[in-house]
Amino acid sequence: MKKLVKNAYILTMERQADGSLRQPFLGEILIDGDSITAVKEALSASEANGAEIIDGRNTLVMPGLINTHSHGAMSLLRGYGDDLPLNTWLFDRVFPVEDKMTAEDVYWGGLLSICEMIRSGTTCFADMYFFSDAFAEAVKESGIRANISRCVDHSAAKLKESCDFYTKWQGAAAGRITACLAPHSPYLCPPDFLQEIAQEAKRLGTFLNIHLAETAGEQADYLKTYGKREVEKLAEIGFFDVPVLGAHLVHVSEAEMQLLAEHQVVVAHDPRSNLKLGNGVAPVAEMLEKNILVSIGTDSPCSNNNLDMFQELRTVALLQKGITANPTVLPADEVLTCATVNGAKALQLEREIGTLSPGKKADMIFVDLDKPHMQPGHDKISDLVYAASGSDVKAVLVNGELLMKDYQLLTIDEKLVMAKAAQAAKRLTAQ
Amino acid sequence: MKKLVKNAYILTMERQADGSLRQPFLGEILIDGDSITAVKEALSASEANGAEIIDGRNTLVMPGLINTHSHGAMSLLRGYGDDLPLNTWLFDRVFPVEDKMTAEDVYWGGLLSICEMIRSGTTCFADMYFFSDAFAEAVKESGIRANISRCVDHSAAKLKESCDFYTKWQGAAAGRITACLAPHSPYLCPPDFLQEIAQEAKRLGTFLNIHLAETAGEQADYLKTYGKREVEKLAEIGFFDVPVLGAHLVHVSEAEMQLLAEHQVVVAHDPRSNLKLGNGVAPVAEMLEKNILVSIGTDSPCSNNNLDMFQELRTVALLQKGITANPTVLPADEVLTCATVNGAKALQLEREIGTLSPGKKADMIFVDLDKPHMQPGHDKISDLVYAASGSDVKAVLVNGELLMKDYQLLTIDEKLVMAKAAQAAKRLTAQ
Repeated sequence: MKKLVKNAYILTMERQADGSLRQPFLGEILIDGDSITAVKEALSASEANGAEIIDGRNTLVMPGLINTHSHGAMSLLRGYGDDLPLNTWLFDRVFPVEDKMTAEDVYWGGLLSICEMIRSGTTCFADMYFFSDAFAEAVKESGIRANISRCVDHSAAKLKESCDFYTKWQGAAAGRITACLAPHSPYLCPPDFLQEIAQEAKRLGTFLNIHLAETAGEQADYLKTYGKREVEKLAEIGFFDVPVLGAHLVHVSEAEMQLLAEHQVVVAHDPRSNLKLGNGVAPVAEMLEKNILVSIGTDSPCSNNNLDMFQELRTVALLQKGITANPTVLPADEVLTCATVNGAKALQLEREIGTLSPGKKADMIFVDLDKPHMQPGHDKISDLVYAASGSDVKAVLVNGELLMKDYQLLTIDEKLVMAKAAQAAKRLTAQ
Repeated sequence: MKKLVKNAYILTMERQADGSLRQPFLGEILIDGDSITAVKEALSASEANGAEIIDGRNTLVMPGLINTHSHGAMSLLRGYGDDLPLNTWLFDRVFPVEDKMTAEDVYWGGLLSICEMIRSGTTCFADMYFFSDAFAEAVKESGIRANISRCVDHSAAKLKESCDFYTKWQGAAAGRITACLAPHSPYLCPPDFLQEIAQEAKRLGTFLNIHLAETAGEQADYLKTYGKREVEKLAEIGFFDVPVLGAHLVHVSEAEMQLLAEHQVVVAHDPRSNLKLGNGVAPVAEMLEKNILVSIGTDSPCSNNNLDMFQELRTVALLQKGITANPTVLPADEVLTCATVNGAKALQLEREIGTLSPGKKADMIFVDLDKPHMQPGHDKISDLVYAASGSDVKAVLVNGELLMKDYQLLTIDEKLVMAKAAQAAKRLTAQ
């Protein structure tokens, strides 16, 4: 089955020979099955023959956004304990609820987040949590793309569960589901256990997703316990010999940044969560200067509290300009690259997604330009970063399948999901 | 003509005897003409007799947001020169375009911003710019509420124009339009001229709207020229003897904050503009601790680049938590107060707007709760601040008149405004 996107401004996110981003142009995209087969100003009649037309008039079509750090099922806890000290929130609110959670809760909470992600233009995301089979079922049914991992603290049973999950789901749902191994953090997983997990990742041929250097206190404690800072210690024990996606990395020294660059660790930068929890601001402008690959994540819907990647990438840009006192850092094209191309690299999917290029999977979003805040349209790339929000996404395609059209979700019974999630949330927080 | 709001959660933004915010409750609001006459859990049949019903099912109704710092007509420059050094942007982009602007441009650019503001839940705003008559016509026709001022640099002619504008428009459009005097800034208006403007404000019985301490460089230069920092100098010359609304106030010393508190200067805090232009972060948590009244503004649509007050107030909260490393500062109820109650005080309209209370004007917005990111709804106040965006505003009433219903603007021909604004923008930026 062929699909033909017509009349849209196309932003491929491809770089040209001189390194500059190819500017948006009016054109056409041909999709065959799950893949893009052509991106041109105008296709010939024979190429487009028999294709279902997707009219992109007054929209800009671009690669779907890639959210590299989330815990989707925690949507059930959105707004449950904001404005509290970190430990009060964690110990009095989050952990007691998580103790009561069932696989079914994770399924409905996961779907609630997936509804929100599709609506706001995310077509692929990395998720670490538990009851991962239930979560994977939600991903499978919804049509979205995800990398899922069973989060592991210091427990052999959980590591085994995590590896089994990988084996069961890697490449499932027509390749939309991938997996990896996810040790929670250096402070919950001692060095020898981290080495063991890294060995398992090497054996399976996958990467590691881990929280790193999120809070100042965590780094201080780690230094006291292990005599080194987190990134230094992990480099020392060979953890970075396997590809690593590190979430947060707010509190990193100059030396740690050098190590991240050397070992090609990919950062999942989560600025709104870091601000909201009082953790500060990651030195992203500096990281990019050091050629560290930075991708963007939202973190969980209870530490953010929405999954709107457009708002997240705007925060990335504004915050770095503000704290470095330099309006030229993190320009619009670079931030969009973080949220697309770099996100794909972070999840080892750069050959499949991240740009609108022939041969890649048809993961794309249509941004509505026909709105007051998207006018007068001097610079569409700038408008995407500094003016657009997730609610401007009008249509979404993943793996060649339409998941949203004219602002209507097509693969999920959204009303049912909201009702089931509300029910679960009520039960979980009942005193 | 009476209107009756039914089935909505009502957030009045009133404080209770113990200082806590009255929590949202399911109830009814009766509106007679331009004013609220009753807010109750259930009105009697006789009270509501003959009223037109506004069904608020699945929404939360709250006071319209108040944007205390904007330059609406600059929507024509949205996306025209982002990511540039401040002076390149100002001298090569903004000023040449402003030199070419006509009253008609200001009218269409103003309407474009008003469309966006109504759509995103702003019912009242303060605007300083030029061709203010044209801008006031746009406000008058649209049905929104605004305080408008003709911005004045060091020019007697402009000051006269400004005073004439005040006399002509104060209280116009059934009271929706108010005015004030607006010296641009201490660096464009020398002390004796500021004294003259303050005298004029006193004579007219109005307040002053001025940019203050926006950039570090400005404060350094001011100190060199006048031997004092901006706020200190203005206090010395008696400028604060008249009520003052000061925009930005990013770079203020401890002593200057004391002066702001003493003289009851109201701050218009514009965090996204301050970040985007590389100007830093105003010490708002500290200001609130010192009992300085803080309101929230977006600044212009070319230094932000949208006018979404929900996103702005979220930035206020997240940013202060992040930079003070304290997740408990700027809690949700306080930020909402800044954007409603404090905004009303900033514009000397606290007896008319800012809360949903009998006797006040019927300025209110209906926030759609029937969306994935607004679920499961543990805490509606938290969801408003940490999850909602302007695009969740489903209906808007100003002065008792519906300006938007079911996401459709009722008083403005939006398509025409977008076309006219695009035309003007193209002409203004043609080489």
